Amino acid sequence: MLEKLDLTKSLNKAEYKEKMAELEPKLGKLQRECRRLGIPVMIAFEGYGASGKGVQIGELIKALDPRGFEVYAVKNETEEEKMHPFMWRFWTKMPSKGRIAIYDSSWYRKVLIDRFDKKTKKDEVADAYRSICSFEEQIAADGMVIIKIFLAIDKKEQKKRFDKLLSSDETAWRVSKADQKRNKSFGKYQEMNEEMLRRTDTEYAPWNIVEAVDRRFATAKIYAIVAQTLAEKVEEAKRKTAKGQDALQEEESGAGGELRSGISVQDRQFKNSILAKADLSLSYTKEEYKSRLDKLQKKMEKLHGELYRRRIPVILGFEGWDAGGKGGAIKRLTEKMDPRGYVVHPTASPNDIEKAHHYLWRFWVDMPKAGHVTIFDRTWYGRVMVERIEGFCSRKEWQRAYKEMNDMEKDLADAGAIVLKFWMQIDKDEQAARFKARQENPEKQWKITDEDWRNREKWDQYEEAVNEMLIRTSTPHAPWVVVEGNCKYYARIKVLETVVDAIEKRLED
Amino acid sequence: MLEKLDLTKSLNKAEYKEKMAELEPKLGKLQRECRRLGIPVMIAFEGYGASGKGVQIGELIKALDPRGFEVYAVKNETEEEKMHPFMWRFWTKMPSKGRIAIYDSSWYRKVLIDRFDKKTKKDEVADAYRSICSFEEQIAADGMVIIKIFLAIDKKEQKKRFDKLLSSDETAWRVSKADQKRNKSFGKYQEMNEEMLRRTDTEYAPWNIVEAVDRRFATAKIYAIVAQTLAEKVEEAKRKTAKGQDALQEEESGAGGELRSGISVQDRQFKNSILAKADLSLSYTKEEYKSRLDKLQKKMEKLHGELYRRRIPVILGFEGWDAGGKGGAIKRLTEKMDPRGYVVHPTASPNDIEKAHHYLWRFWVDMPKAGHVTIFDRTWYGRVMVERIEGFCSRKEWQRAYKEMNDMEKDLADAGAIVLKFWMQIDKDEQAARFKARQENPEKQWKITDEDWRNREKWDQYEEAVNEMLIRTSTPHAPWVVVEGNCKYYARIKVLETVVDAIEKRLED
Repeated sequence: MLEKLDLTKSLNKAEYKEKMAELEPKLGKLQRECRRLGIPVMIAFEGYGASGKGVQIGELIKALDPRGFEVYAVKNETEEEKMHPFMWRFWTKMPSKGRIAIYDSSWYRKVLIDRFDKKTKKDEVADAYRSICSFEEQIAADGMVIIKIFLAIDKKEQKKRFDKLLSSDETAWRVSKADQKRNKSFGKYQEMNEEMLRRTDTEYAPWNIVEAVDRRFATAKIYAIVAQTLAEKVEEAKRKTAKGQDALQEEESGAGGELRSGISVQDRQFKNSILAKADLSLSYTKEEYKSRLDKLQKKMEKLHGELYRRRIPVILGFEGWDAGGKGGAIKRLTEKMDPRGYVVHPTASPNDIEKAHHYLWRFWVDMPKAGHVTIFDRTWYGRVMVERIEGFCSRKEWQRAYKEMNDMEKDLADAGAIVLKFWMQIDKDEQAARFKARQENPEKQWKITDEDWRNREKWDQYEEAVNEMLIRTSTPHAPWVVVEGNCKYYARIKVLETVVDAIEKRLED
Repeated sequence: MLEKLDLTKSLNKAEYKEKMAELEPKLGKLQRECRRLGIPVMIAFEGYGASGKGVQIGELIKALDPRGFEVYAVKNETEEEKMHPFMWRFWTKMPSKGRIAIYDSSWYRKVLIDRFDKKTKKDEVADAYRSICSFEEQIAADGMVIIKIFLAIDKKEQKKRFDKLLSSDETAWRVSKADQKRNKSFGKYQEMNEEMLRRTDTEYAPWNIVEAVDRRFATAKIYAIVAQTLAEKVEEAKRKTAKGQDALQEEESGAGGELRSGISVQDRQFKNSILAKADLSLSYTKEEYKSRLDKLQKKMEKLHGELYRRRIPVILGFEGWDAGGKGGAIKRLTEKMDPRGYVVHPTASPNDIEKAHHYLWRFWVDMPKAGHVTIFDRTWYGRVMVERIEGFCSRKEWQRAYKEMNDMEKDLADAGAIVLKFWMQIDKDEQAARFKARQENPEKQWKITDEDWRNREKWDQYEEAVNEMLIRTSTPHAPWVVVEGNCKYYARIKVLETVVDAIEKRLED
């Protein structure tokens, strides 16, 4: 998930000033409201070395009344702490009702730095996760607001920051040997971080990923996250007090389509964006396409047989904008494959029997057995796109769906499956052109409906939902692949190539 | 937890007939209501070999309309199932809304039989638990009713049943070599079962433990469990439909003191009883007491020093009836111990600061560091006794507390602590005598308050809550010890002996 982030995001000074002028007093006010309503808040900062946790905490507390918060620097355990269970120091540093506690690295240390440095032993990892999850679950159920912030930079940026620190005697001490080792093995350490994000991203304590290369951007985004979360909790608490719990409950189970509100629309700039990064100018000529296609399809045919012999199941999910080219890509992918070894499931609105089950049920039923390939044309991710936006499920439901879907895919991967998910990306103009072409072509008119036009009107909402989906559910064992789709040739080749590569890689193992 | 069960529970034919005449039509009616309301139900049967799962399922379905349920025999995986993730077969066998599915052994197989038989590898256990928990959590959140029933017999009974089956050619095939192996290693297999019960006993999918030596008793109890659970869910669904969710919510957060209702009071006979088993005639003479006390206290003194040197923390919790002898036992236990190495925390009603935190917070704060001994005079278990009965917390809150407290104790044990919990058991007459003696003795009058008398009036409610607590929270790493306390001498010696034994055992490891 992390390598997909757009780390170039930034704010210039003027933008920053404007943003902060709005957010800073807001945050101060929210703190006072939390105090009045007795809402306790824990804010945990995680992220790579030199990603700026200390600096950002320094910025954050500027907005806060110092009588109402504590900051805890969580470093190596003290002698006292070593003599207790590892969660003890967090239990004892828990804010009381109405107070805010901020943690400069947190209880996640145990499954991140300490794990990487082998202070946490291999067989302790599962127990540590259990302790962490139990901790968050029970304090959240008791009313604790848990805000988890992950500061992301990449290997190069980290190296640059370390080098700068090392170049001066005054700051060199801040970069340890262990820091440098983690930079060298950045990929491996990133995997640990991604596992952590996946296993602990819950509806009651979700992760907020902050692009932290540009410090101004990160500061403003952190302010926005904290303000938004607190505003929601304050709202909730007020409604609870005012009318009993009924209104609250209604809202939760009611129209869940609305996107997180609470702060102004401009703050969408803070959402993690992945789609915007796609380079839609990528293309192949017809000749390039044909020669590549031919080679890849032949390869695919061979690999398909090999998959069958080795009993490896393959699950391919396709999502994308309407007219994004899913159908064409699936067709080229399967053209040369033995039809007895694969099946394509088009996913429509659930029928009555499907509606009488859990939303994942129909997909579980259709999962391939070992050695077979199943292709889903639209997938379980409808839960966090159309169902979210159209309000077919409640907000609580789509919020917990990320973890549910990650868990399902983990089960599949643990059983040996190759799981890939494709997002067919086109821009709005390209979609308009394709819609028009379909309407004008009598043979393709069936492909375009009023609903397509209605969905198109909600482009921005979908884009936001898709970005959130991509960041929360792209995992090492079931990655999302964004396919630059303005050129159909390019898109089809990229899909085929990605599948072929993934299979070849597995067969090598 | 399991070895504490009273397996002698039974019903004679007349009692059984009467019970069933009431429960059978009730269950049929509830099934119809579930169907009408679209409530899906999964009933999982687990328990030792020859504990009668098949027989009991046969009895249970007699009450049900055959058009509304399926029974799945979950044996070794089929070839088809082996080619999917292990949860796949349960996803595909999930009842649709309004239907009931019954599983003759279930998804727990993976962490029980298959684990014992080493089909589940050691490093797969943690993942299997995660899959199971994720499965139950998400289907419960979606409205699935999950009823989990564990049939308990002991090693001797199992042996007897196996022998009987083996004695006839017609039935001998039903006892496998693996069955016999599990009987031989009953203790080890029981530990796996207890771990399972502890890790998966949640508020939304709790375990129901059924004493299954007497088949009539087990049948009637299973009927009562299923009827009670369904009655509650039907009630809930009706309220939801009728008034929106407000009434429901209110009830959940409101007076939680009430014990599970729904079926008639006589059904208390089906509750797991542990206290009733305590032999309160156990006693020592003054001479026996003095000589034992002297020896044990000297031992304790020595062991205390050893604990300090070996940096082992010890946590001792004391609960029991008012005037049950907690104070006296603690006094004798600590008399010869170095006061710098232990501390006794009396637990009163929470003060304002404590109320401003999670209910476990104050206990976490007071946990001993390595090498120290902390004794709690009354403990965190107040949550599921006084807070439950007096309605100081909601039903949801005390129901999820069992797992929260087990999780806390697991964290402590994982960090190396010895954790023991004592329940000081006396009978009602003995309590009356002690209350009276206190009232008549000017020096002890302070020990008896109006509240004690009020609590005494709720004896039956407490007894039920205590029994449930003992069964749900006695774990290998933090066992409950029921101390037969009518004779104070006996009780004090048993406490000292238990502590000394536990420490000696640890020091040997």
